[in-house]
Amino acid sequence: MSHNTFGHLFRVTTWGESHGPAIGCVVDGCPPMIPLTEADLQPWLDRRKPGGSRFVTQRNESDTARILSGVFDDGAGPVTTGTPIAIEIQNEDARSKDYGEIARAYRPGHADLTYQEKYGVRDHRGGGRSSARETASRVAAGAVARRVLGPDITIRAGVVQLGAHRLGTDEVDFDATYENPLFAASSTVIPAWEAYLDSVRKAGSSIGAVVALEITGVPAGWGSPLYGKLDAELAAALMSINAVKGVEIGAGFASAELSGEDNADEMRMGPDGEIIFGSNHAGGILGGISTGQPITTRLAFKPTSSILTPRRTVTRDGLDTDLRTKGRHDPCVALRGVPVVEAMAACVLVDAMLRHRAQIG
Amino acid sequence: MSHNTFGHLFRVTTWGESHGPAIGCVVDGCPPMIPLTEADLQPWLDRRKPGGSRFVTQRNESDTARILSGVFDDGAGPVTTGTPIAIEIQNEDARSKDYGEIARAYRPGHADLTYQEKYGVRDHRGGGRSSARETASRVAAGAVARRVLGPDITIRAGVVQLGAHRLGTDEVDFDATYENPLFAASSTVIPAWEAYLDSVRKAGSSIGAVVALEITGVPAGWGSPLYGKLDAELAAALMSINAVKGVEIGAGFASAELSGEDNADEMRMGPDGEIIFGSNHAGGILGGISTGQPITTRLAFKPTSSILTPRRTVTRDGLDTDLRTKGRHDPCVALRGVPVVEAMAACVLVDAMLRHRAQIG
Amino acid sequence: MSHNTFGHLFRVTTWGESHGPAIGCVVDGCPPMIPLTEADLQPWLDRRKPGGSRFVTQRNESDTARILSGVFDDGAGPVTTGTPIAIEIQNEDARSKDYGEIARAYRPGHADLTYQEKYGVRDHRGGGRSSARETASRVAAGAVARRVLGPDITIRAGVVQLGAHRLGTDEVDFDATYENPLFAASSTVIPAWEAYLDSVRKAGSSIGAVVALEITGVPAGWGSPLYGKLDAELAAALMSINAVKGVEIGAGFASAELSGEDNADEMRMGPDGEIIFGSNHAGGILGGISTGQPITTRLAFKPTSSILTPRRTVTRDGLDTDLRTKGRHDPCVALRGVPVVEAMAACVLVDAMLRHRAQIG
Amino acid sequence: MSHNTFGHLFRVTTWGESHGPAIGCVVDGCPPMIPLTEADLQPWLDRRKPGGSRFVTQRNESDTARILSGVFDDGAGPVTTGTPIAIEIQNEDARSKDYGEIARAYRPGHADLTYQEKYGVRDHRGGGRSSARETASRVAAGAVARRVLGPDITIRAGVVQLGAHRLGTDEVDFDATYENPLFAASSTVIPAWEAYLDSVRKAGSSIGAVVALEITGVPAGWGSPLYGKLDAELAAALMSINAVKGVEIGAGFASAELSGEDNADEMRMGPDGEIIFGSNHAGGILGGISTGQPITTRLAFKPTSSILTPRRTVTRDGLDTDLRTKGRHDPCVALRGVPVVEAMAACVLVDAMLRHRAQIG
Repeated sequence: MSHNTFGHLFRVTTWGESHGPAIGCVVDGCPPMIPLTEADLQPWLDRRKPGGSRFVTQRNESDTARILSGVFDDGAGPVTTGTPIAIEIQNEDARSKDYGEIARAYRPGHADLTYQEKYGVRDHRGGGRSSARETASRVAAGAVARRVLGPDITIRAGVVQLGAHRLGTDEVDFDATYENPLFAASSTVIPAWEAYLDSVRKAGSSIGAVVALEITGVPAGWGSPLYGKLDAELAAALMSINAVKGVEIGAGFASAELSGEDNADEMRMGPDGEIIFGSNHAGGILGGISTGQPITTRLAFKPTSSILTPRRTVTRDGLDTDLRTKGRHDPCVALRGVPVVEAMAACVLVDAMLRHRAQIG
Repeated sequence: MSHNTFGHLFRVTTWGESHGPAIGCVVDGCPPMIPLTEADLQPWLDRRKPGGSRFVTQRNESDTARILSGVFDDGAGPVTTGTPIAIEIQNEDARSKDYGEIARAYRPGHADLTYQEKYGVRDHRGGGRSSARETASRVAAGAVARRVLGPDITIRAGVVQLGAHRLGTDEVDFDATYENPLFAASSTVIPAWEAYLDSVRKAGSSIGAVVALEITGVPAGWGSPLYGKLDAELAAALMSINAVKGVEIGAGFASAELSGEDNADEMRMGPDGEIIFGSNHAGGILGGISTGQPITTRLAFKPTSSILTPRRTVTRDGLDTDLRTKGRHDPCVALRGVPVVEAMAACVLVDAMLRHRAQIG
Repeated sequence: MSHNTFGHLFRVTTWGESHGPAIGCVVDGCPPMIPLTEADLQPWLDRRKPGGSRFVTQRNESDTARILSGVFDDGAGPVTTGTPIAIEIQNEDARSKDYGEIARAYRPGHADLTYQEKYGVRDHRGGGRSSARETASRVAAGAVARRVLGPDITIRAGVVQLGAHRLGTDEVDFDATYENPLFAASSTVIPAWEAYLDSVRKAGSSIGAVVALEITGVPAGWGSPLYGKLDAELAAALMSINAVKGVEIGAGFASAELSGEDNADEMRMGPDGEIIFGSNHAGGILGGISTGQPITTRLAFKPTSSILTPRRTVTRDGLDTDLRTKGRHDPCVALRGVPVVEAMAACVLVDAMLRHRAQIG
Repeated sequence: MSHNTFGHLFRVTTWGESHGPAIGCVVDGCPPMIPLTEADLQPWLDRRKPGGSRFVTQRNESDTARILSGVFDDGAGPVTTGTPIAIEIQNEDARSKDYGEIARAYRPGHADLTYQEKYGVRDHRGGGRSSARETASRVAAGAVARRVLGPDITIRAGVVQLGAHRLGTDEVDFDATYENPLFAASSTVIPAWEAYLDSVRKAGSSIGAVVALEITGVPAGWGSPLYGKLDAELAAALMSINAVKGVEIGAGFASAELSGEDNADEMRMGPDGEIIFGSNHAGGILGGISTGQPITTRLAFKPTSSILTPRRTVTRDGLDTDLRTKGRHDPCVALRGVPVVEAMAACVLVDAMLRHRAQIG
């Protein structure tokens, strides 16, 4: 992944700052003849967009995606043409006045300091380029990727841990994710988790979370060892999402405590000549290549550092100060991260599919 | 990262199978005028090479690296010339007879199945391309990278958890790593851990582990947002190492339970105009760019699936069978993974340094 | 160069079709702190834009470039921030009604056939993605590149051959290029060439041309052997321009008739310790690396196949037909190709500069 | 193309200097299950290797290629495994003593000056990395590429102009190329051309040449517009060959003098539903995509600057001197360039095939 482009063959380049006129992306390398309209993008964008509940930022954006190129209707409905798909989303509710103070002081835990140190200049308004607003472009690209993958591949994620509140393994239900305002992969814990997150929100605080991701329908064989391993590509794509601090594949860190006997996923032939695994500690990937089992991964999101309690920090001019982050923020950024996680996974998978097809046919 | 090449500007391409005539790598994009001889590579290779203790495979390899190009002595000693550095390591103790059975049956937890499914053919001897033997090439490349980085950047790793045995945070001492046969970042736990690993080894079993990595001396500003974030690049490079199933940056999964107040690393100006952080939950990276603090990461290694207890599996011909992995193996692959982790980190850092220099000057 | 992105570190991704709502590009990897406004782009776009004289297409486009990201005014005027620069140009005069017939029949010499064969669908309106309209994006990106290169590097091109009419070597004057409607690198031949091109235009015909390009001020050392040679990169970038069928560096095809004695550019030390060359058959590049001499190249443009005389062709449905290209076209596409040639050269040079700086410092 | 790697999906990385212990390449991304042995490489290497006649350098190299990885015999003969194919060729006749003088003085027309200026150091022995010896690696990679392409695609080149001696268009016969020591695409001109080149050789001089290349059997649809156009990729690959100074596709520079009526390749439906072109000025490529016609290109090679007549030059220490190139050289480097041209074309085509297959299926 190179600066602002990710993917090798299905290449997504994003651009735009939080408070500039617009954000967007260019999707290059998409196969042609895939039916695609703006209506295919919007449901996914709507899931990520702000303002949907009291648990997410109140910034008022319709996040309406416009396709500017790469799709053509030759009589049988709009389809991709194999040329770059440019997607643009206007910034409609950028309130630069909210952010005057952070032009001077660095918000702890944000990228203010590092952008300034690296580039010598930064668009501080709303976090500029490092704002999570950029992830709308990822979701739009992911929606294109889903169209390419087709319905046989399902990509589902959800919050499985909110602060110290965790779902048990058998409590996880990805069908529930978009049915509750917490993006939780559960329908039973919602009242308790809502009460908890309300307390965080009202305190002007924030909290971290863990998101689980499950992908089904990927055939055996995708992934490009040794350095384009499917798990390595997923790890990079997911770690590139704002606030993500950890990625696990399959048993992840728990595998450190497993014995070889327990960890190995045994195999038996099934009735139709297919391989049946006795377990899935590998998370659907061996040697960087998909096994045909579900691909399972978990990600840790840190709490946003945008909180109402003043924190000690320094200014661009080298002075100590205390900073209280005003403006509109999410008490738990992982929530709206869920559709972003799915989108990044979709892009990685299309890329792996195309690379596999290239080499193997 | 693309198939068998990693890095954008400091590009490492590796080749070779476990039981072929040799393995090696080509390092391209190395800056010129860096003093480099084979003696600079060997100490790092010696740390990874097999046969050093009873806790690692007894395969007998000298792992002697030969530099075939890219270095020239113009009178002032051998230096890199800016052209590709080809490094070659002979395979001296490949015993293909040990591996006849796995030509037919897939070892559970190994890449036998997936390589066969993907490519329709695989070099099964000793795991072929998916063998950890390939990591010798990574270590050689990492040694070159260390020469480019120079002495001000330290890259140190060590085992901090062996099965269920964990070091406390304040027990970690990376100076101890190469002073004990367990590659443990501690000098106090060795007897207990040795006894434990002996029991695993004698049982013909294996166990997972966690390796911690700490990098100091990286200046603020390295990393290439948004998709070439330094943490994303590290995650991909580390996840590409055999048996790694999880990667954390900074507080990692623990950050899911932190509040914004606790997680934010507060700042104050130091006496010499430098920024002093009150903590390092970020692990030295914010917004994908280094902060100047130590970069800290942790990796989970799964146990090798090469164990003496027979496991249920299937053959290439679609028959059920039980397979007991004979041959020479490591009871804990994470141990020899430690120098590999350091090497990958070194390569990622040089790449980040060169990319930073390209864009910023 | 990969699909619709060119450059390694200074990466330009273009998108858009001739008759879609807009075209544009994303410039990624640009160094920060470069002063840049839309006013820096417009003069170059104005040189390329249609409608400027009777010798170019009468399509009426203002080609107004809008910068949507990557530039920020922190008080000292707008500068690049190191993040992606998105540039957008509206299509204002797309007349799709002109192009109905070519939805069915393939224009000989155009990409209608090949896009349809490759993708199974194409946006036929005005040539869609293969239209020379896309080159406006290249010119915009080239204008950014010029800002990065600074004033010490001059990049100048001009028409040196129009059909059978050629300038002598000592007649070439790049200062004249934008002073005449033929983009000719000469002020003396204009009346004769205008009369000639008028006759071509009135006949509804078209003609090819040769454009020469001269770059001065490039220091010795740029270029990345062996496969990123500066001449190889230039050749690819220039050959990717619509209608270009040949590229020469330095003496080019004439060097086939030279002896080693005549071709070698002899050297002598100059009064200030600089190297003075006796000639420049190499065109400023040896072994893929700049010598410090002017970089000279020549490109052949074919005549556009959009002419009024009917040509024999076939339809998408496999029927013979005769096709007369109506609509608005250039009698010599090389003319407006001149600023495009300069822009591509500027992008290649910035990329080479950044790569050089990365490896050498 | 990036430093020492070319290709996007079929990626060839070469390494090695003229007088180091060996040279070689790593071919990554090759499809699996392609039958391949060293015997498939050798005939192509033999065509390029020195010492075959009095018209080429008398350096004595067997150019024996050894495959070190990526090929495995699972019972049905050796096939590619989809993993990196490492190929190595020993340098057997490196006489470093011949080259002492050029350690100090820059040979005019060679890359001595530019490598020194760029890197601050160079392996001067025999030209080091910039020696044409590196092209043996290209030929080996090209031989692998030919196996992937299969027999339906023919790639043939030959010398069509030697100094001022040119073949007429209807005199070109690529079947003759390897039947004569001049690599001429003709059997009739050999005595005259031999006499001419003998005179050049005996004078210790050198001469340039033009090589033509014709590729048949490429289906319509290969090529990746806009910046990975098939002609742009070919131009870069061919321009990266030592001594090449110009590349034409189809009518090339002659198209500058053509009218639109003459240049357009008219089409008619053939008896079997195929498209029949009336001409091939496009050289088999329109809009960067193959048309299905033969792909035709021409390349200009400059004369080598290694000649016996002393030329004026400067030393590394900034002194004027006169230099007479001793050692073993080719009177016309284009001759042995012919198999290199074919090899580069083969690599470009496999890459285009894989990219096409990735996107289109």
